[in-house]
Amino acid sequence: MAEKRVTREEDYATWYNDLVYQADLAEHSDVRGCMVIKPYGYAIWENMRDVLDAKFKEIGHSNAYFPLFIPKSYLSKEAAHVDGFAKECAVVTHYRLKNAEDGSGVIVDPDAKLQEELIVRPTSETIIWNSYKNWIQSYRDLPILINQWANVVRWEMRTRLFLRTAEFLWQEGHTAHATKTEAIAEAEQMLDVYAEFAENYMAMPVLKGRKTASERFAGAEDTLCIEALMQDGKALQAGTSHFLGQNFAKAFEVKFADKEGKLDYVWATSWGVSTRLMGALIMTHSDDQGLVLPPALAPIQVVGVPIYRSEEELAAISERFDTLAKALKSLGIRFKYDNDDNRRPGWKFAEYETKGVPIRLAMGPRDLENGKIEVARRDTKTKEVIDFEGIELFIQNLLTEIQAHLLQKAKDFRAANTKQIDSYEQFKIEIEKGGFFLAHWDGTPETEELIKQETKATIRCIPFDGDQTPGVCMVTGKPSERRVVFAKAY
Amino acid sequence: MAEKRVTREEDYATWYNDLVYQADLAEHSDVRGCMVIKPYGYAIWENMRDVLDAKFKEIGHSNAYFPLFIPKSYLSKEAAHVDGFAKECAVVTHYRLKNAEDGSGVIVDPDAKLQEELIVRPTSETIIWNSYKNWIQSYRDLPILINQWANVVRWEMRTRLFLRTAEFLWQEGHTAHATKTEAIAEAEQMLDVYAEFAENYMAMPVLKGRKTASERFAGAEDTLCIEALMQDGKALQAGTSHFLGQNFAKAFEVKFADKEGKLDYVWATSWGVSTRLMGALIMTHSDDQGLVLPPALAPIQVVGVPIYRSEEELAAISERFDTLAKALKSLGIRFKYDNDDNRRPGWKFAEYETKGVPIRLAMGPRDLENGKIEVARRDTKTKEVIDFEGIELFIQNLLTEIQAHLLQKAKDFRAANTKQIDSYEQFKIEIEKGGFFLAHWDGTPETEELIKQETKATIRCIPFDGDQTPGVCMVTGKPSERRVVFAKAY
Repeated sequence: MAEKRVTREEDYATWYNDLVYQADLAEHSDVRGCMVIKPYGYAIWENMRDVLDAKFKEIGHSNAYFPLFIPKSYLSKEAAHVDGFAKECAVVTHYRLKNAEDGSGVIVDPDAKLQEELIVRPTSETIIWNSYKNWIQSYRDLPILINQWANVVRWEMRTRLFLRTAEFLWQEGHTAHATKTEAIAEAEQMLDVYAEFAENYMAMPVLKGRKTASERFAGAEDTLCIEALMQDGKALQAGTSHFLGQNFAKAFEVKFADKEGKLDYVWATSWGVSTRLMGALIMTHSDDQGLVLPPALAPIQVVGVPIYRSEEELAAISERFDTLAKALKSLGIRFKYDNDDNRRPGWKFAEYETKGVPIRLAMGPRDLENGKIEVARRDTKTKEVIDFEGIELFIQNLLTEIQAHLLQKAKDFRAANTKQIDSYEQFKIEIEKGGFFLAHWDGTPETEELIKQETKATIRCIPFDGDQTPGVCMVTGKPSERRVVFAKAY
Repeated sequence: MAEKRVTREEDYATWYNDLVYQADLAEHSDVRGCMVIKPYGYAIWENMRDVLDAKFKEIGHSNAYFPLFIPKSYLSKEAAHVDGFAKECAVVTHYRLKNAEDGSGVIVDPDAKLQEELIVRPTSETIIWNSYKNWIQSYRDLPILINQWANVVRWEMRTRLFLRTAEFLWQEGHTAHATKTEAIAEAEQMLDVYAEFAENYMAMPVLKGRKTASERFAGAEDTLCIEALMQDGKALQAGTSHFLGQNFAKAFEVKFADKEGKLDYVWATSWGVSTRLMGALIMTHSDDQGLVLPPALAPIQVVGVPIYRSEEELAAISERFDTLAKALKSLGIRFKYDNDDNRRPGWKFAEYETKGVPIRLAMGPRDLENGKIEVARRDTKTKEVIDFEGIELFIQNLLTEIQAHLLQKAKDFRAANTKQIDSYEQFKIEIEKGGFFLAHWDGTPETEELIKQETKATIRCIPFDGDQTPGVCMVTGKPSERRVVFAKAY
């Protein structure tokens, strides 16, 4: 843990990659584009998953599991969908290996060629709607509110841990409804679930809005999204919720009979968040000393480190920590006591700082004698010595305070880096500094593309909130309905 | 739900398959050998997973995630392993599709051929040990106690829902140790975890033992297993725990320095259970009326059905059930109140019987007036009318009683179908009737193979418990160290 760290200022991309390694979150595997999520990183993902999963279920969704493989022909059934996903997929063509006749190892058995190739799912709309076809006859079978936690594969040439990997983990909700109104309400509801999760658990403020037509999910009629701002001024799309209209129902011929017996195509949504959220979490809060985790998602919320010279001192300090461990556990606080004798306190301090543990406690013989304990905050890097008596309630409150502080800090950062801009010349300069830019746009894909070509900035969303006043496009001077959000993005 | 059912007596395989469909647990997908696990089936699997996951963590394991794809060359590094798994795997050869020039749809892009083919993991020893290589330098890095919940693929030509599918869900533990003793203790400990889970949650008694050399996991030095007996007299391997020796450490060159600085190869275990447990659960308890679920794993433990003619009656009955729902929730009991007005009570009774809900409550206007409620047990198909007052504690006790009753019933069945046998002629007759057979065997693979060829029975395990007296092999008359367990198996 003593390696010299690259700072964010020096090289943000290197800082990020090093941090993922040093905090033991994940690493690149030998398999191109695929990562290994290590136990500490996976524990954070599990916390995210558990919170989201409970929320999905609370509002009526169930989990299910659909095949990993999608027959090639299914992808082609929805025209926009195949264009969006066929370019980057893992294709299974054979189902057997055999020993090479020259003894050189195993080779693909040419006799075991599949009649139709299978695609490792990049997303599951097609395989799921092919199942829904058999599940839906009448309005009584609707709505179907299903979610799946799964791995998906999108062949990526340039990968970054958590942010862009060939294989990643995610959840994908796929719902079927009798009416357009109900499907739209579902898509909006799920976007709210994501936004509240981002704010309340990740301590990450997000903009809610809709994508422009050119940024929509392949096969969607409307794509809603949450967009967050990272510390380097780049935007990160943190979750999407799609109103799919009747596109997939038409592609897979899924009709239902309404109360009057009239047949109509079923309305659909899909929505998802992925291990990309890990990247967002890291880049929202962490600093040059390592990871900073919001208490709501930290695998270890509080760590205790004994400082001692003798066995007797350790025993006495451990006894105190043991009492504290029980008190914290009964408050539902995730506490770790690190009495590993192979490591010195200084090493442990650095280790838990790197790993972003929100609160570090330390107790030495003098603290013991005086009934005191040292409490250090990871977020502010402040520490104080306080009474051991009643410490558990102090910690409970402090965790709440840290959670709130991280959110406020991220909100302040975003506010300081969100600007209204009206001149395209000025935009081209400012966009290089990073941040969200609220600008007028004429609503055409041509202007959107021009801006992207010239500045690498994209329209992150047409936000639901904020200034709705019309104006004129900063590029063409044509009328603009309202300001939209531009940024360079991950 | 009114379809005529095939009974177990008439055709066990059809009964099983129909039940999986009728109870809405799973179905075959259009993708060869891959199943769709439907919400009700998945909810049972989630309950299994949650119990096991909590236990794994309690005894020191963490979850992590490793790549779906394994480079072909990795499989070859452990000689026995490649022989065991190369025969049946999905091979990714390309990473892109493109539009066919003749406009006929999408085709595999021949320019996007992988340099080295990737195998969709049939199990993850190779990819994981390739990672462990970089994680382990000294004894301080050991033990590594990691588990992964994942999907795996083994190409199967003949599939049966849950029991044998090309893709299935499982957990695979992979641990690394400094000593042989510690690795063996880990393998044994995990077998105990599985056995206790089977008995205490699935209400399924299992035999613990070790596999013969010919039935061992490809790459293991010792394979421990739990074996259960299904109602048709066939055995089902419900979980395995492998002592891998130093095989994978040698294949991937994973050495560690001990306290004295001496280098040695690392010792390993792996252990897993899969969605196959769903098949075991179904076949252990269910009857000709449908699924029977042990309360500990039932997604719905208690269902309430109102019986009414008017809105007023429904309102009054619903008020009672509402009170009860709160009381049951506070006891941690999973309760569903089904007041769906589209379905009649008789339909609901049949539905929940098919789905194996342990306790069904029904209340009509007269019960309401008399302060009574009808309580029906799924396992014994008995019902009684009792006082509504205090019903929640009655239900709590009844759930415990049902759980115990199912286990006892399964134990009795197994006892009645376990026989000692000494004559091979007699064996050939008896084995056709099903059951576990405790017989002497000379310990050679040749005799084992002969018995398998002639009777289709295999040695399920060399049991840890039971009669350890030596004897003579029922086939060859040669000395036998002890009786082993034979059965036909799934």
